[in-house]
Amino acid sequence: MLKKLTVALSERSYPIYIGQNILTNFQSFPLKSGERVLIATNDTIAPLYLNAVEKMLEENGVKVDTVVVPDGEKYKTIETWNTILTSLLAKNHTRNSVLIALGGGVIGDVVGFAAACYQRGIRFIQVPTTLLSQVDSSVGGKTAINHPLGKNMIGAFYQPQAVVIDINCLKTLPQRELSAGLAEVIKYGIIMDQDFFNWLEQHIEDLLALEPNAMSYCIAHCCELKAKIVAADETEQDLRAILNLGHTYGHAIEAELGYGNWLHGEAISVGMLMAAQSAKLLGHFKESNINRIKQLLIRAKLPVTKPEMMSTESYITHMLRDKKVLSGKLRLVLPFEIGQVQVIDDVNQEIVLQSIELCQ
Amino acid sequence: MLKKLTVALSERSYPIYIGQNILTNFQSFPLKSGERVLIATNDTIAPLYLNAVEKMLEENGVKVDTVVVPDGEKYKTIETWNTILTSLLAKNHTRNSVLIALGGGVIGDVVGFAAACYQRGIRFIQVPTTLLSQVDSSVGGKTAINHPLGKNMIGAFYQPQAVVIDINCLKTLPQRELSAGLAEVIKYGIIMDQDFFNWLEQHIEDLLALEPNAMSYCIAHCCELKAKIVAADETEQDLRAILNLGHTYGHAIEAELGYGNWLHGEAISVGMLMAAQSAKLLGHFKESNINRIKQLLIRAKLPVTKPEMMSTESYITHMLRDKKVLSGKLRLVLPFEIGQVQVIDDVNQEIVLQSIELCQ
Repeated sequence: MLKKLTVALSERSYPIYIGQNILTNFQSFPLKSGERVLIATNDTIAPLYLNAVEKMLEENGVKVDTVVVPDGEKYKTIETWNTILTSLLAKNHTRNSVLIALGGGVIGDVVGFAAACYQRGIRFIQVPTTLLSQVDSSVGGKTAINHPLGKNMIGAFYQPQAVVIDINCLKTLPQRELSAGLAEVIKYGIIMDQDFFNWLEQHIEDLLALEPNAMSYCIAHCCELKAKIVAADETEQDLRAILNLGHTYGHAIEAELGYGNWLHGEAISVGMLMAAQSAKLLGHFKESNINRIKQLLIRAKLPVTKPEMMSTESYITHMLRDKKVLSGKLRLVLPFEIGQVQVIDDVNQEIVLQSIELCQ
Repeated sequence: MLKKLTVALSERSYPIYIGQNILTNFQSFPLKSGERVLIATNDTIAPLYLNAVEKMLEENGVKVDTVVVPDGEKYKTIETWNTILTSLLAKNHTRNSVLIALGGGVIGDVVGFAAACYQRGIRFIQVPTTLLSQVDSSVGGKTAINHPLGKNMIGAFYQPQAVVIDINCLKTLPQRELSAGLAEVIKYGIIMDQDFFNWLEQHIEDLLALEPNAMSYCIAHCCELKAKIVAADETEQDLRAILNLGHTYGHAIEAELGYGNWLHGEAISVGMLMAAQSAKLLGHFKESNINRIKQLLIRAKLPVTKPEMMSTESYITHMLRDKKVLSGKLRLVLPFEIGQVQVIDDVNQEIVLQSIELCQ
């Protein structure tokens, strides 16, 4: 079982392969015997998959170097990025070498940005190992590192040569991270695909149980939806903004509690409900739809109430600092139906405060 | 007197303005009242031009922040790049802000790379203040910083919104740097324009004397020639390689003596003569043409013999390490006529050694 999708971009296209055990299937990698690669991964993923990938590539004549960096969002830094670049230089990699990003969203972002910058750009292959990175960050070409003064503030739009999604990797993923990935899956249904939302209502337990057919369909469909948006709007001028449903509220939670205490997907889960409440208060969204979303999030084992320790007022401070805020006005993506959202400029701060309080 | 050229690229075009005192002419800057900019410059250029540019922009309603970094190739580092990014973040610049690079090639490269990376890319304007950066590094979209393990190893292809070339800046340029810039000017004649080489033979003293009409014509013509090459080959796949005439030999000199002891243009001057000798030894280039090049370089006050302290053998070590070397084979750009070069793969190392010895 190997699905292949294509992300169509103005300048070039790249394939996404989805299947079981394809991490060790050379056919999934756009590489030739004799080529040189550097596999960059983290210290959680390395003991699980690095040897297998390395062995498979070497058996097919690829010359492999490896670099292992510490796991975690707090290492998504200039220093880690420089570690990868230094590793490429120390081993005399040329502009013909290929970087392989083996890991979750952090690895994809930092390794992708290293590929974008090494000798002004070398090829790279994404091998996302978490559900979140499989459905979200491996498609779209956004690469970045954090700066002490802001998350994802340094980066590039840079597309991979291929994305290799092995659903068997999810077997080693902690339950809480699986659920966090499902938050982004559910988001796709809300922003643009009512049929898919209906399908999720029927199959959410299959996904939690990692049933291969359901999971494979789900990931492929999310990638297709995201690819459709990215192809239409590669550099986030307009349409791509709808992917931020729940993110302005969610980032406030992440920023206040410190990144990593609540997983990104957990914050987005509550953030989407806050956005739904805002839409309802503005007269755009039905109470019954809020309940459908809430029930699905609960079944996916995601939080649906705001963090107890966080005051309602503290959200506003963080939300006004968001990269997506234009000159002090709160600009939010709000659902109008299940499967349809709109970007609303200048949302009243009173509406925002009420929405937050409705999620407790 | 204001010349305007256009660099035509597949995705977008940008203008190059050339004139006297245009540094303080708002018409040369693609900016509107109310916009925010960060001017990044170095501590040599800041006392000469920063206040004037800042005042002019503020008088036209632009909100200006500034950052001054140390002057010199040794500061073309991750740290300087991060200083510029930190300055943007500390002053809450959004993705709508504009970076202005005010200075020579180092400032252009490091500031351009900061613009390429800040929030995944913001607009930037190049204001090159040295002859070398005016005729070379401000056109072509190559941005980069150095790594302890290699020069220009981290960077991006990223195009400016506009290039503003004020030839009056050359009045404060040391004579030695003016001559170094002329080495790249002469290079354009050799690689692709015999008529321009003839013109240089008639006007080289005018250029050294900064005669405005000659200098303005010369810079515009070099930018046109480079723009033609860049437009045909934006990411250095093929044609753009001819711009490297003399650079493989020249980089060996710079690397052996330590960057900055010989200026880049000085090393290229001797490097071009070595390439000419190689071409002659291979039967492609006439002795009389070598002499024409040598005489012009001498009149431009450039070195034409190799550094005394450097052994012939040490060149080979450096040349084999060059980014442009493919799998250990020496690949050189060689002149076939004045105005015509070819890339020759696999040049015999004996030819290289002889060429070096002929330049003493």
